[in-house]
Amino acid sequence: MIAAEAQGVATKGFATHGPEAKFGPFEFTRRSVGPKDVLIDIEYCGICHSDIHQARAEWEPVIPSIYPMVPGHEIVGRVTQVGGEVTKFKEGDVAGIGCFVDSCRECPACTTGVEQYCIKGSAQTYNSTEMDRQTPTYGGYSKHYVIDEKYLLNVNATENLEGVAPLLCAGITTYSPLKKWGAGPGKKVAIAGLGGLGHMGVKIAAAMGADVTVLSTSPSKEQDARKLGAHNFVNIRDEGSAKNAVGFDIILDTISAQHDYNQYLGMLGLEGVMIVVGVPTEPIPLNAFSLIGGNKVLAGSLIGGIPETQEMLDFCAEHNIVADVEVITPARIEEAYDRTVKSDVRYRFVIDMKNA
Amino acid sequence: MIAAEAQGVATKGFATHGPEAKFGPFEFTRRSVGPKDVLIDIEYCGICHSDIHQARAEWEPVIPSIYPMVPGHEIVGRVTQVGGEVTKFKEGDVAGIGCFVDSCRECPACTTGVEQYCIKGSAQTYNSTEMDRQTPTYGGYSKHYVIDEKYLLNVNATENLEGVAPLLCAGITTYSPLKKWGAGPGKKVAIAGLGGLGHMGVKIAAAMGADVTVLSTSPSKEQDARKLGAHNFVNIRDEGSAKNAVGFDIILDTISAQHDYNQYLGMLGLEGVMIVVGVPTEPIPLNAFSLIGGNKVLAGSLIGGIPETQEMLDFCAEHNIVADVEVITPARIEEAYDRTVKSDVRYRFVIDMKNA
Repeated sequence: MIAAEAQGVATKGFATHGPEAKFGPFEFTRRSVGPKDVLIDIEYCGICHSDIHQARAEWEPVIPSIYPMVPGHEIVGRVTQVGGEVTKFKEGDVAGIGCFVDSCRECPACTTGVEQYCIKGSAQTYNSTEMDRQTPTYGGYSKHYVIDEKYLLNVNATENLEGVAPLLCAGITTYSPLKKWGAGPGKKVAIAGLGGLGHMGVKIAAAMGADVTVLSTSPSKEQDARKLGAHNFVNIRDEGSAKNAVGFDIILDTISAQHDYNQYLGMLGLEGVMIVVGVPTEPIPLNAFSLIGGNKVLAGSLIGGIPETQEMLDFCAEHNIVADVEVITPARIEEAYDRTVKSDVRYRFVIDMKNA
Repeated sequence: MIAAEAQGVATKGFATHGPEAKFGPFEFTRRSVGPKDVLIDIEYCGICHSDIHQARAEWEPVIPSIYPMVPGHEIVGRVTQVGGEVTKFKEGDVAGIGCFVDSCRECPACTTGVEQYCIKGSAQTYNSTEMDRQTPTYGGYSKHYVIDEKYLLNVNATENLEGVAPLLCAGITTYSPLKKWGAGPGKKVAIAGLGGLGHMGVKIAAAMGADVTVLSTSPSKEQDARKLGAHNFVNIRDEGSAKNAVGFDIILDTISAQHDYNQYLGMLGLEGVMIVVGVPTEPIPLNAFSLIGGNKVLAGSLIGGIPETQEMLDFCAEHNIVADVEVITPARIEEAYDRTVKSDVRYRFVIDMKNA
């Protein structure tokens, strides 16, 4: 444990200094632990595809990349110090940090628990600023984080924390829309794409009681899909197999490669809903008839607010759901990035920060 | 009144014999009035844009055009004969026929009142066949129709029947999704495009109690929009005006010209819903971020079933809603088609079949 001093918390992290730079050690100072703050020692941090997009400045100009950048918003760690007014956490607790670490707390979004849509703009966990709009935020590829307890999540687990870390983004990204659109017993749910998001979608939809089908272009993933909890597998490149892909109530589309929305919408039943959580680089041509015939719905979803993220963590703890991960040292971040881009990971890289 | 004889009901209509042919008189025979059938003398029939698409074979190969074609599915007339087992109608009643005249009556869609989605395929009012899949159906550009009372709608009006006719398609097309997605008091509803569908959308959304904005590219339509019941008007080609087009709960998109879905989705508030009822010819590029940011929804909707169409007619009667129409003789069908294509009608052509 590092003591928080008036001048802040000295923190060792791993940063990149430009779109094509390599990651390397980076020393910085987090704010001192205030009365409502909690200091955590980070144990594990997942590598989300959005880390790669931002580290490599692929989302500019929509989302500018700020360097030096310490990515990471799938964070699990242990509480090592709490401020005098903290009530929800105590030293030794396991806690998680997701995609944002603060927000205005007053707008309709903040007061209804969808802080990711704070009208002033929430403070992202990294590649952003604190609500003062000046202090840069650095993410979970680091040894410590200081955060207001309001934005810190309770983790009811002490084992397999490396598998818990990805829940903070991949878990909530899939849980929130599956719940909103009614995944559950009697519902036919398809998960399109079996990567970091998709494999969480399978586990969560199955735990919700839905009949789960994986739609994939990789027949080699069938065995995995079934092991993760899928009841059916469809290779959508195989016509014989694909003709069984009809009548879904929900399709969770986690595919970030270019694909044909119209084809997938055609697999929905009457009033069916396809939820887009993957972000293809280029816009996809949409035919109005694909929606009109069958009163279909194409919906987007972006992570979730703090109350729902806590609900998701509790749900996952209750159903023994963690991500399937490959744990790496910080020295292997570039390799992990390259392999993630090639979908060569089953199903999430997680950096071991505990021993870093 | 023409007596229904064993050999059927001799009917005078107006048909086209090919994609480029002109409309002309066409004599044909409708089925005899069966025990559950109702014979109506058609008084008015609206001209829907889909009549034009099908008469001109513009939807082939998806929807083949069958000639000779007597279009028309916005039909109002008077009951002149009822079969022995008919219970809902009696001679002299005013009644309406919409987009379909029969369905299998047994599938989940039929038994839940969304007969337009009958799994066997409902019998369309024209350019289709009866459920025997052999007898061609001819639409409302004709003097009579014979229909099972189950598919006939009750019209609680005796005046302005020319304005009631378009409710049978344009009315239900806009009513159904506005109701489903919660248009009502406290909701900001935008109607994109002010044509046949759009002008019904304005009247219905305003009657539902919503705050209604018309989004248009024709500033000349502002006065009309307000007369129809809109509270606000935005010329989306004018930057100053367009910047007020934000935070809608619902956008009803009735535009059939090519337009940018992403631009309109950007006008929705958090969890806002855009409903597509217009059908542009070409697919429209959709950016996943347009849906993901704000948890937005893009939904399609296709007319409505018999129970909801009746509900819509009753709602319109209660709120004194009819379409704004220009009544023409059958001799002017081609002229009306050409003007409809140019949006040169405020807001629906209706053929006077009573005096034809």
